[in-house]
Amino acid sequence: MRKVNLDEKFAAFDEYWSPKIIGELNGQQVKLAKFQGPFVWHHHENEDELFLVHRGHFRLELRDRVLELGPGELVIVPRGVEHRPVADEEVEVLLFEPATTLNTGNVRNDRTLDELARL
Amino acid sequence: MRKVNLDEKFAAFDEYWSPKIIGELNGQQVKLAKFQGPFVWHHHENEDELFLVHRGHFRLELRDRVLELGPGELVIVPRGVEHRPVADEEVEVLLFEPATTLNTGNVRNDRTLDELARL
Repeated sequence: MRKVNLDEKFAAFDEYWSPKIIGELNGQQVKLAKFQGPFVWHHHENEDELFLVHRGHFRLELRDRVLELGPGELVIVPRGVEHRPVADEEVEVLLFEPATTLNTGNVRNDRTLDELARL
Repeated sequence: MRKVNLDEKFAAFDEYWSPKIIGELNGQQVKLAKFQGPFVWHHHENEDELFLVHRGHFRLELRDRVLELGPGELVIVPRGVEHRPVADEEVEVLLFEPATTLNTGNVRNDRTLDELARL
């Protein structure tokens, strides 16, 4: 049991679209990710996903609209809802989601990560 | 499905030790709380609990040590671990925990809240 400083953890990695696990509770994981550019359209069949912006901005594209998110703003994407995060500049994001969540959801491609590092 | 701005949500209430539900996912809830002064010693039998400081500082007292938490710092308290949050000045905290979590855990007293408001 330890205190986690988000600034320190974000400073510990550079890769985009490669979430790092920083905590686990109740079968859920807390992950930190850096986004830059567009990700892939996908949905999660069985998992709701929370995005909380720590620093920077990104757009969460949905099929019918776009949500613009900045520091201290969060959104919960319910299971089954297609989405695509897009960041014009680097953004630091905290994710809360079940341990079973695959980063590309129903899509499997070169951005799919079956194993995530822990920080 | 909507964007949630934490500053706006924290500005919408004043009570201390009265968590407000701002989101739900995967059987878990995201709550916002303001702490001031000491809370009660308690533990949660079946729930791990995450505290993330949004603004201000507080001490998480454990039986064998104390963690000092400031903005952008989080801690996960595993189920069964006795703890007591204490804030010398007002602090704004985000909680992530199962929907079944009672604020005073194994203790029932005048600070126990069986129903939480939603913001």
